[in-house]
Amino acid sequence: MSHTNIRSLAKELNLSISTVSKALKDSYEISYETKERVLKAANELNYKPNAFASGLRRKKSNTIAVVIPEVADSFFSLAIKGIEEISQTKGYHVLIYLTYESWKKEQAILEDLKNGRVDGILMSVSSETSCSKHIKSVLDEDIPVILFDRIVEGMEVAKIITDDFESGYKATNHLIENGCTKIAFLSVSTLLDINNKRLAGYKKALTDKKKPVEERFIIQCGNDFKTNYEILKEAMLHSDKPDGIIGSVENLITPLYLVIKDLCILSPSEVKLISFSNLQTAEILNPTLTTITQPAFEIGKAAATILFNALEKRNYNWKKENIVIPSELCTRESSIISK
Amino acid sequence: MSHTNIRSLAKELNLSISTVSKALKDSYEISYETKERVLKAANELNYKPNAFASGLRRKKSNTIAVVIPEVADSFFSLAIKGIEEISQTKGYHVLIYLTYESWKKEQAILEDLKNGRVDGILMSVSSETSCSKHIKSVLDEDIPVILFDRIVEGMEVAKIITDDFESGYKATNHLIENGCTKIAFLSVSTLLDINNKRLAGYKKALTDKKKPVEERFIIQCGNDFKTNYEILKEAMLHSDKPDGIIGSVENLITPLYLVIKDLCILSPSEVKLISFSNLQTAEILNPTLTTITQPAFEIGKAAATILFNALEKRNYNWKKENIVIPSELCTRESSIISK
Repeated sequence: MSHTNIRSLAKELNLSISTVSKALKDSYEISYETKERVLKAANELNYKPNAFASGLRRKKSNTIAVVIPEVADSFFSLAIKGIEEISQTKGYHVLIYLTYESWKKEQAILEDLKNGRVDGILMSVSSETSCSKHIKSVLDEDIPVILFDRIVEGMEVAKIITDDFESGYKATNHLIENGCTKIAFLSVSTLLDINNKRLAGYKKALTDKKKPVEERFIIQCGNDFKTNYEILKEAMLHSDKPDGIIGSVENLITPLYLVIKDLCILSPSEVKLISFSNLQTAEILNPTLTTITQPAFEIGKAAATILFNALEKRNYNWKKENIVIPSELCTRESSIISK
Repeated sequence: MSHTNIRSLAKELNLSISTVSKALKDSYEISYETKERVLKAANELNYKPNAFASGLRRKKSNTIAVVIPEVADSFFSLAIKGIEEISQTKGYHVLIYLTYESWKKEQAILEDLKNGRVDGILMSVSSETSCSKHIKSVLDEDIPVILFDRIVEGMEVAKIITDDFESGYKATNHLIENGCTKIAFLSVSTLLDINNKRLAGYKKALTDKKKPVEERFIIQCGNDFKTNYEILKEAMLHSDKPDGIIGSVENLITPLYLVIKDLCILSPSEVKLISFSNLQTAEILNPTLTTITQPAFEIGKAAATILFNALEKRNYNWKKENIVIPSELCTRESSIISK
């Protein structure tokens, strides 16, 4: 007889791998009848309960993976610091995998991680990721996945995010209060939940103040510096150009400042700026940059804490965790009424 | 009889693990007599030559590790991009491990990597690393290690660096030519080869121009933002303060600019600035920052290329590789004579 694993056991029982796994771990989500059925089959097929109990299965590598789109963004480098702070106390190694915003690469990495190289995964999805099948298939192997910042909406898995909608709202409101009437929102991938929530907050703030939402002020940006420079230059050369700009991600800041400088536009008197960012250099730019500062370090810590709880605690329904840590508006020169 | 591994074989023969490994791979570095002795013992102890031949040993994980001090520095995020570009074409996964400048952590990571999790290692040592025993012990396991940027001088291993001495010289000379007479060098860990070479270049440039090297202008900085802010503030509050400053690493830029701003010192008329950096934001600072820009992407690519050659080619003496890719002086407002 060939070796029985969780997959063959599930097939034999005509149940999902996830159900069998939960039944073996005595999860409250599974009915008594199903648990009995699973245990009976496990015995018949010569499963040694200890061999597949979560404790043994999960603790073999003492390593966790962090799968993220990039490290050049200060949000991610800070989040990693938070993750490392928790992992250190647990004696775990942290492996960082970069997807470079490629869904294909993200799938290949998760496929590779199914081999048991790590005990659990912390992940922020790429801007191309439009389905969660690859994540589910890792969960089916009984490897916990915690999503942070860039999540997949509607998926039953632990999520740690910031208040993207409220932050988009707050940023827009701040510019309205400082006299802007033509506020542009620099949008990135519309597949990204964070982008869409920030944009929704922007629209809601305008609507609440009885201002029109104009499509031409929702500026679709790309992934590379040169493209973004050209897109922003065109927008700022327009005769009816924006008098307020919200950058939805950090990497739009340098092209934005360069365009403003190259076109000799005065900020903040001609155009007020605010960006989502954790850049330390925000304070030394000219003008200093008003930011929506995300709790990157705290998000990393919270995500790692939940992952270790998932690895250590029995009967803990970690997939239900849904934590929102608010971002902060840091007002600096770029967005306030100039004297 | 217990299982014979390379360690027990080496012990039996009273040879180093490295010698036995090279002999089994038919390296030109090993004498014919030694090779004969090793192969004879390997046969007697029931070694299956194929089981320890480099090809089989090395190609099992299709993964390489990058061990670096941090990712918040743009040098490292660019170097990783270069490494990924090469690894992608080879179908390899790249794991990033961060040491956070801790030698202890670096040792723990290398110890963990000895278990065969990866086929090879690209590494930039921490600012605390003062000996290479941990690197040698990985090499003894027949896992190639390529050092890049922050190397350990005197170790027989492939090294890819930039021209740190020449760059330190060039930066200093540039400030002298722009009228500076009191040039400070912001030094970091004196255990770091890159720091010492940059500092040596600074001293040589001063000496060549018959200027004195004054110890008070070699300012020892720390690892964290707050400490560096205080150190730099003290230096700039001195009655006989520097009129030119060379930042030897990127993370000194923000505290330096903040001190200058907070003390209302005018740059470049009162103090000229230059820093080693790959920061994209150098162009949007006020004043725009003159930099020594390192070939980070190219260094990453070269290091990865040598590693894959080491994994793929037989009889290739990769340890002898020693590549120097020059840095570039990018002159901007912060260092030039103000009108």
